[in-house]
Amino acid sequence: MKTDDPVFEFNKQIIDATTDFCVAYKPNLAFYEALGSKGLESLEKTMEYIPKDIFTIADAKRGDIGNTSSLYARAFFEQMDFDSITVAPYMGEDSVKPFLTYDQKWVILLALTSNVGSNDFQELKIEGTNNKLFEEVLKTSQKWGNPENLMYVVGATKSEKLKEIREIVPDHFLLVPGVGAQGGSLREVAKYGMNKDCGLLVNSSRAIIYASSNHDFMEKARDESRKLQQEMEQYLDAYL
Amino acid sequence: MKTDDPVFEFNKQIIDATTDFCVAYKPNLAFYEALGSKGLESLEKTMEYIPKDIFTIADAKRGDIGNTSSLYARAFFEQMDFDSITVAPYMGEDSVKPFLTYDQKWVILLALTSNVGSNDFQELKIEGTNNKLFEEVLKTSQKWGNPENLMYVVGATKSEKLKEIREIVPDHFLLVPGVGAQGGSLREVAKYGMNKDCGLLVNSSRAIIYASSNHDFMEKARDESRKLQQEMEQYLDAYL
Repeated sequence: MKTDDPVFEFNKQIIDATTDFCVAYKPNLAFYEALGSKGLESLEKTMEYIPKDIFTIADAKRGDIGNTSSLYARAFFEQMDFDSITVAPYMGEDSVKPFLTYDQKWVILLALTSNVGSNDFQELKIEGTNNKLFEEVLKTSQKWGNPENLMYVVGATKSEKLKEIREIVPDHFLLVPGVGAQGGSLREVAKYGMNKDCGLLVNSSRAIIYASSNHDFMEKARDESRKLQQEMEQYLDAYL
Repeated sequence: MKTDDPVFEFNKQIIDATTDFCVAYKPNLAFYEALGSKGLESLEKTMEYIPKDIFTIADAKRGDIGNTSSLYARAFFEQMDFDSITVAPYMGEDSVKPFLTYDQKWVILLALTSNVGSNDFQELKIEGTNNKLFEEVLKTSQKWGNPENLMYVVGATKSEKLKEIREIVPDHFLLVPGVGAQGGSLREVAKYGMNKDCGLLVNSSRAIIYASSNHDFMEKARDESRKLQQEMEQYLDAYL
């Protein structure tokens, strides 16, 4: 296949293949920035191509002082019209708030991530509380937003923690990466993480888009996303 | 002035005006991303224009799971040839390490930032230690890198903490934003933060680039950067 934008072409085919089974798409900014301004162009075209009724997540892990976070919000919510963005909490309230001032847009704040490094700081116990750092993030940030504009990242590899997390944030949606390539179990995630609105956005990236590296990548991506959607439907029946 | 890239044109003139007095330039990614792929193009041109002997800092506050941080490292160290990048520590070791695998490149890890929100999590006391979270970040991350590839962000508005921070990281360079528009004192920063190699990269952004909004912005930017350089020279004489 010849095209002057193979990244967009690939995305387009993945979207066509999976759109029947997806509730959201979550482009990872690093993959576009690694290609420079041309990469961002591919992403802009991709965003225009995604059907308007499908939720979009800028997986960007941004967060900076207020005036800078305002500009990141403009980049992702206005320039590219994402519905939501992942945000890192380390810099606190004024680094998160600018993203929360937009109507119909969402912050997805990192709480407990799926990687090994999440043990380094997120699991540290905070003196004078019964909380670990990620629990402090969950509790403190609830004063900044509400279940209508704030979600949390909780890694699927940490499904054993979902029960206690649900006690802190019963109503917020959780974005759960780590099913698939990173080894998290969808059954566990659904069992412990679901709330009365489902409350879960479960993400599988590599297991779908790289399901095959051959010409059949569209079919394989479609198969994998269908499989995941069907599994999720079972758990919705069982636990909702 | 007519040009099809006014952002690059402005940057070019700021660089020409200030290059005699600067040791580093620190573009803030949000300001470019807010303009979409065209903004990234302006940044790419700016990076090519900055004289090669001047240190460059991508103020990007990135940090994600390992395979994603690797791609951010490629974006900033290869695609754009920055010398360094600011990185957020929340996701721990495997989110930082990919940036440290490059020769002659630097991670500048957030420790204690200049904004009010730094109180929310960075100042929390960690149980079983005498450390606050930012001190844990300083101590733990020293196992990941060394003074030749790892610096820390410490806000100028926190200069009273610099003495204790220097006890934890005597040899690492510190990037100190917050002098100027954010109200930090250069004298205090120099007095408590300098080490035997100086060890400080003091940043003033808005006070220089927005010194004037008239046609004389080049002269005013030059004046402001000269003033800061001269003040810094005094402190180098006094404290080094």
